[in-house]
Amino acid sequence: MSFEAAIHAQAIEVGKLSLEMTAAAGSGHPTTSLSIAHLVTVLMFDTMRWSPDYPDYPTSDRLVLSEGHAVPAVYAAAAKLGVMIGKDPDNRRKLTTDDLNSLRELNSELDGHPNPMEGFPFFDAATGSLGQGLSVAAGLGEAARLDGFDKRIYCIIGDGESREGQVAEALDYIAERKLTNVLPIFNCNDFGQAGRVSDQQSAERIAKKLEAFGFEVLVVDGHGPDAIKAAFTVFAERQGQADAVPMAIVANTIKGWGCPSIQGGGWHGKVPSGEALTRALGELDERRVELTSALNANDVFEIQPPADAPARTEQTAELPSLSDTMRKMDMETVLHAGRLATRKAYGIALRALGRINDDVVVLDADVSNSTFAETFAKQSDLADRFFECKIAEQNMVSVAAGMSAGGKVPFCSTFSKFFARAYDQIEMAINSGANLKLVGSHSGITLAADGPSQMSLPDVAWFHSWTTMKDHRGNPGCYLLQPADAFAAYALTGVMAEYEGVCYMRTLRAETEFLYSDDQVFNLGGFEVLNEGRDVVLCAAGYMVHEANKAIELLDAAGVSATLVDLYSLPFDTDKLLDIISENNGYVISLEDNYGGGIGSAIADALVESGDGFTLEQMHVRHIPKSARTPDELLASCKLSAQDIVDQAMSVLQVV
Amino acid sequence: MSFEAAIHAQAIEVGKLSLEMTAAAGSGHPTTSLSIAHLVTVLMFDTMRWSPDYPDYPTSDRLVLSEGHAVPAVYAAAAKLGVMIGKDPDNRRKLTTDDLNSLRELNSELDGHPNPMEGFPFFDAATGSLGQGLSVAAGLGEAARLDGFDKRIYCIIGDGESREGQVAEALDYIAERKLTNVLPIFNCNDFGQAGRVSDQQSAERIAKKLEAFGFEVLVVDGHGPDAIKAAFTVFAERQGQADAVPMAIVANTIKGWGCPSIQGGGWHGKVPSGEALTRALGELDERRVELTSALNANDVFEIQPPADAPARTEQTAELPSLSDTMRKMDMETVLHAGRLATRKAYGIALRALGRINDDVVVLDADVSNSTFAETFAKQSDLADRFFECKIAEQNMVSVAAGMSAGGKVPFCSTFSKFFARAYDQIEMAINSGANLKLVGSHSGITLAADGPSQMSLPDVAWFHSWTTMKDHRGNPGCYLLQPADAFAAYALTGVMAEYEGVCYMRTLRAETEFLYSDDQVFNLGGFEVLNEGRDVVLCAAGYMVHEANKAIELLDAAGVSATLVDLYSLPFDTDKLLDIISENNGYVISLEDNYGGGIGSAIADALVESGDGFTLEQMHVRHIPKSARTPDELLASCKLSAQDIVDQAMSVLQVV
Repeated sequence: MSFEAAIHAQAIEVGKLSLEMTAAAGSGHPTTSLSIAHLVTVLMFDTMRWSPDYPDYPTSDRLVLSEGHAVPAVYAAAAKLGVMIGKDPDNRRKLTTDDLNSLRELNSELDGHPNPMEGFPFFDAATGSLGQGLSVAAGLGEAARLDGFDKRIYCIIGDGESREGQVAEALDYIAERKLTNVLPIFNCNDFGQAGRVSDQQSAERIAKKLEAFGFEVLVVDGHGPDAIKAAFTVFAERQGQADAVPMAIVANTIKGWGCPSIQGGGWHGKVPSGEALTRALGELDERRVELTSALNANDVFEIQPPADAPARTEQTAELPSLSDTMRKMDMETVLHAGRLATRKAYGIALRALGRINDDVVVLDADVSNSTFAETFAKQSDLADRFFECKIAEQNMVSVAAGMSAGGKVPFCSTFSKFFARAYDQIEMAINSGANLKLVGSHSGITLAADGPSQMSLPDVAWFHSWTTMKDHRGNPGCYLLQPADAFAAYALTGVMAEYEGVCYMRTLRAETEFLYSDDQVFNLGGFEVLNEGRDVVLCAAGYMVHEANKAIELLDAAGVSATLVDLYSLPFDTDKLLDIISENNGYVISLEDNYGGGIGSAIADALVESGDGFTLEQMHVRHIPKSARTPDELLASCKLSAQDIVDQAMSVLQVV
Repeated sequence: MSFEAAIHAQAIEVGKLSLEMTAAAGSGHPTTSLSIAHLVTVLMFDTMRWSPDYPDYPTSDRLVLSEGHAVPAVYAAAAKLGVMIGKDPDNRRKLTTDDLNSLRELNSELDGHPNPMEGFPFFDAATGSLGQGLSVAAGLGEAARLDGFDKRIYCIIGDGESREGQVAEALDYIAERKLTNVLPIFNCNDFGQAGRVSDQQSAERIAKKLEAFGFEVLVVDGHGPDAIKAAFTVFAERQGQADAVPMAIVANTIKGWGCPSIQGGGWHGKVPSGEALTRALGELDERRVELTSALNANDVFEIQPPADAPARTEQTAELPSLSDTMRKMDMETVLHAGRLATRKAYGIALRALGRINDDVVVLDADVSNSTFAETFAKQSDLADRFFECKIAEQNMVSVAAGMSAGGKVPFCSTFSKFFARAYDQIEMAINSGANLKLVGSHSGITLAADGPSQMSLPDVAWFHSWTTMKDHRGNPGCYLLQPADAFAAYALTGVMAEYEGVCYMRTLRAETEFLYSDDQVFNLGGFEVLNEGRDVVLCAAGYMVHEANKAIELLDAAGVSATLVDLYSLPFDTDKLLDIISENNGYVISLEDNYGGGIGSAIADALVESGDGFTLEQMHVRHIPKSARTPDELLASCKLSAQDIVDQAMSVLQVV
């Protein structure tokens, strides 16, 4: 068959459909779509081993469209191939070219940017916030390698997009991990949104950089079917070569390929309509006449199916108790000492989890000896499921999202503070329906000596926001967990592994006393009453539970009977908490080692909805903290010491 | 003089003091400090043109320590030189070597990581969260170039740290902008925290990458005084060469230089004490004997002073009215049409501001035609104060922080959603006392068609947190501004320019009707009552004010008299708002086009502190939104339409 003619014919169809569907939607990026029309056509019609009937089949080759705004090209190709779509896996239908006109409609599976959760399972992750796709592809590559799947992951990245530092992080990661099953394809169409792409992102410069990062680079004509296929073949043939280094493709393309009337600057994200649309479609028809003369009737593509996927083995074993696990680790003395940092309990839990759940993988950002992810990493039988991501948090989170799409249960750890570098990546993972566990250590001010550049302070407020809405499964966008002792941290790590969705757990640097035992049950959405009083409720989490405990004793001595609630989860059972507050005359004080907007505000949200006359005093960090030698000094300087809590309680109760 | 011997003598002193002060503090990073001891000594004792008496003198050469944990080396050198310290510029004192033992104490100016706001004005910005310093240095370089200062900015970056993608963003920026007054110095000591530095960050690999990015690279022995000085001389001599490309230094160093007993892995962030300390100090003494024999008594350093700084001209002109400015721009018709998107009013304000305030600079991330920063950029007399940062938000924010340290008033704009990529950079800027204005466009769900990958949804909650605490000046960490119309957006842009501190303003994609006029005064911390009723208060901001206006009419028709508050600022005057709510029987409904934790929670915080029986219903986005063709469709799907507001009001008032 004439491969060139056949690809051109399909690519031109893809381009025309992209123009038509964006015109119908009244918005979108047809010119970017035209720049990747040939790359997408060769991949989906010829190169990828996959099945339009099972677009998310586990062993299928994958396409990650990092420059998500170019998605009309993929929708168009998918329609031509009758790819199955639909939110409900058991109730999917074939996408038709007619469906394309529903692009960006409220009830359409064809969202403005790629998102598997809206009913287009061909994709593994939501993209559109730029620079994240290559990291997701790396995660898919790692998962495939762990599963022993001969699976190839193709990722299309825009030239302007590659200015995002996360792309450099992903390239370093792929090169270091020798992920030869991942192929970065840079779409160099030379135009960004506001202007031309910088010379720093020119095709030549990108190729130079890729070589410096350790990649073998092929520069191709992104609209030349044979050239594209040849490059993909080189990539495929390198699979399994022991000494192979990762490879990348730099594709020279034209934004608005085939349509001179909409090329060049000023056409990014612009949709031709009326005469301009007719002209552009006409220009593509002319290109067809030119380029497809060699086409003959029996030039049809046969898509290679993926290999059969092995049946998934259910992970059913029970997590042993913390005490049993510590005994196995010869930590009897610590167990008897009765003090252990929650970050260390997290590490112990990871190690136990790794042994009962083959899907659990652990990622860290060069601080595994601080987060104690090293407790997992240092086990020879688990080491191959530990991924050292180095100091690159954005890449770590998106790689984990990719691993999740590959069926893994990723735990990511770094300092809580540094997860803030990946909030956008976390949001895109939530939008993708990822099954992600984020565990930040050194939370809040009790880190003390290192100062505010290492302290997580507005983090609780941001995650609080994710507890006020629902994800695609109807669960909170994220559960925020703040264990106060080792038993809680251990148990909640197990709970996170059982749950499908995103969780964020804050652990502490400081050693803290045991408050619970092996028998204590912890639930997402739960809380625990540690002391039953009648005058005022203290709601605390994490380190502040211990400070509250000290305050309870002082208050008791002063004749005040305080209730202590360990609010270890956001969201929590608000009705149950309101009852407890009512039983304490409506007086409540919240205690946080972070800035406001966190659990105090969450309690306030619940109280004012009730309309009863409750009184809440929020105690939290109210100025930028600095270094101090000890947690106690810092707590006192932030007016969060046990004595400050007592004084606040006395003033709330108007006890003079 | 024997330069080699003299530098070694001082560097060894710096190393010993670093060991002693971290031992006194009981924490810190002496081995990293030792790895930069020679680099810091050559810079501070010989190369930099500065004055220990005026460490923040405007024309002084600057040192940005990106790997902030190595700060003991700088503190030690500063003590030897008697650098002035103190929070109050009018009341500073010379740092002494005795002071060094106060490192990390609660009341010490010597914080765990660099921070000018804690009393060490030698630094321009807080560092310690890795990967940000080179961007700050680039901002200082831009400011110096604008001011015509012959000023050199040196930046020390760790090898492991350079894995952060932001470093690649900064390198692209420096190369593209040809900032030959900025010198990146990579400290390659080959050890990270959890293990060895990746081969991707080896000295050789970093040098290769730098060349690929367009830098001229010198690889030097980071402990060889003559080699270091020679490299700095090459850098200095390139100043002013028209054709010069930026230069970078890769310094091969030893973590724990001079102290074999604390070298290699396992010593990151570890502090030798007792015998280990004595041994390490002894090892350094031995090195002194070896390396300083050529030293003679009159080997003293003379620090070159900075050039005289010109007197700053006060910016006193008044911002003209929006109407006047629009008339000047031939926008009469728009003015009469009575509708203008807040993002466009922002652009118009920037243009007017640029003309009355020479310090105003504008940065954007390849979306200036969406944020309308282009209205400033396209003026030939302002173009040199516009900085196209391309798609790299982390670098943009840190560059702006650097410009602020250089005396500029930077406005940064991109989509609100994409500022989330730079939250950690924003936090470090707040900690630095930066004077930064962040303006995010396409806020909330009314962006509609593009879907959630472009919508800012948890952003209000994060910035709400910054309104619950105070910065070093005693102001809110950040003001959150949500103008509802063009007059508000224009005026608030002017207000932000007058204020010294960090502000975040959300603008909208959609065209919105005028609600105000030129005479309306807007204040940080203020709000406006748009309709006085008696039954219930609707608190809205931005787009939701317009939806609330529609609801008011429907409620009025139903015999309900609602009050409408335009809560355009967080924080706001809580007492004043509580009075208004009291006058409306304690019923209030908050309206947000984002997830919860935002203005609704801020109102809840205020209500529950009062202890009165108020009832607040929060209306906000409660699930992950998707694409829709129009804002109205999306508002309806999120239950935020005017009719939904009416229904909510009726149920709050229990009107059946």
